[in-house]
Amino acid sequence: MPSNKIKEILSVSNPFFKNFRALTLKKVREREGLFLAEGLKLIIDALEIGWNIRTLIFSTSNIKSSALERAIAGTMSSGGFVVKTSDKVMASLTRRKNPQSAIGAFKQRWYQSQNIDLSKNAILLGLDRIRDPGNLGTIIRTADAVGASGILLIGNTTSPFSVEAVRASMGSIFAIPVSRMSEKDFISWQEQFPGFIVGTHLKSSLDYRKLTIRKPILLLMGNEQQGLPDSLTACCHQLACIPQIGHTDSLNIAVATGIMLYEIQRKTRFLI
Amino acid sequence: MPSNKIKEILSVSNPFFKNFRALTLKKVREREGLFLAEGLKLIIDALEIGWNIRTLIFSTSNIKSSALERAIAGTMSSGGFVVKTSDKVMASLTRRKNPQSAIGAFKQRWYQSQNIDLSKNAILLGLDRIRDPGNLGTIIRTADAVGASGILLIGNTTSPFSVEAVRASMGSIFAIPVSRMSEKDFISWQEQFPGFIVGTHLKSSLDYRKLTIRKPILLLMGNEQQGLPDSLTACCHQLACIPQIGHTDSLNIAVATGIMLYEIQRKTRFLI
Repeated sequence: MPSNKIKEILSVSNPFFKNFRALTLKKVREREGLFLAEGLKLIIDALEIGWNIRTLIFSTSNIKSSALERAIAGTMSSGGFVVKTSDKVMASLTRRKNPQSAIGAFKQRWYQSQNIDLSKNAILLGLDRIRDPGNLGTIIRTADAVGASGILLIGNTTSPFSVEAVRASMGSIFAIPVSRMSEKDFISWQEQFPGFIVGTHLKSSLDYRKLTIRKPILLLMGNEQQGLPDSLTACCHQLACIPQIGHTDSLNIAVATGIMLYEIQRKTRFLI
Repeated sequence: MPSNKIKEILSVSNPFFKNFRALTLKKVREREGLFLAEGLKLIIDALEIGWNIRTLIFSTSNIKSSALERAIAGTMSSGGFVVKTSDKVMASLTRRKNPQSAIGAFKQRWYQSQNIDLSKNAILLGLDRIRDPGNLGTIIRTADAVGASGILLIGNTTSPFSVEAVRASMGSIFAIPVSRMSEKDFISWQEQFPGFIVGTHLKSSLDYRKLTIRKPILLLMGNEQQGLPDSLTACCHQLACIPQIGHTDSLNIAVATGIMLYEIQRKTRFLI
């Protein structure tokens, strides 16, 4: 391990950690274009698929792990900064009682919509004004699980790079291209989209299991409280509902998106 | 409105609110056997299906609503205590910037397992050591949506009566019977269960879409990190996996449970 290049900082109040901790704030993340990801396995996976790491911080209790050596080597070879610290500092950085043994600051990566795969097998997901970062991260994880080609965040959707969204994505934020655009830009973009667009709507009477599905396909899901606005349902070739027979009149957005994505997978991949 | 029986308390530091606020703590909820539910619609729905309310607190800004009058009348007729307060106090009770205009303290209701419907159309859900209250609440909401007859919480599962679980259930905690039992008691109980038991397991090679499903049916889902232990997979007639083709190797538990419950609904209700 090239420990001569590793800096040791043990004081919780060191300005270096103050700056690092500021990345838990949205304003600072956006200004710096960085985000935080916790966990050694996740950091190594991200490095291996080419994500740009700026800073790696690890706690001394983990110093002999070979996984840690790979993370350190990967960070150094891409010009990143490596800091060794204590478990106590790690807990203060992540605000967790049982912190991970490593945390990285990565450069945010936003895809241009023209770089998203639109080939004939593509499954895309469009998310309109998702508000809750836990929901967004969970949806990114599910989109990854079905092999989606990309996610379009439409309008004022919460950032996929918040600590909570990254945690809920369980590393899938590194695996799936994410693009963002205004509703107006989405409406222009989809006019050129060569595939099929489906959405969900509480007022639709078409059971989602009866949807016609052909690829490439874009699934559009709307805001937690309001669902899709008319301006976006107008973009859909078909609108479906997920029937609910109990007391409740809606599903959690991450659950509903999971059911829809697996329905698309069923109709496009399962029976091949 | 029988305002003569409504007590007005406006001081945030009043001991009455201190006691009420203590219900956000697990220890106090369990000792008192109470829990908190926010939102006027949810409170009225709960009263209408016979839940026992002990205290209703509402903010003065909402005093003319007819829904509020129904909630007050329902609380009084069941012997509950009604308090009028300010928006500021409401925000302090719920720790929210935009608090609901009403909050109720209800008596927890645990069903005995022998009172859960096991008739031939029943769909039951068994949850083994679910840790996250948001996940549990979301799962309760989905179970309600598919018309499940009851939920069995097995072993050390997080309480469905925490503030976060109740919020995530969006009122479904009032609509669906919930029972709890140790793993040992579950294993005895399921020996008498007349129906089919299915579970999910990452190591199963049976695609969940190929599951045999007949009712009554019990779906077993395991802990977020560990899944089902061998002791519980041994109770299952069939074990299935939800295929994942991307980078991730698992789904969020609430998403996976949603996909499974809708698969069961598909095979038992959809094609009738």
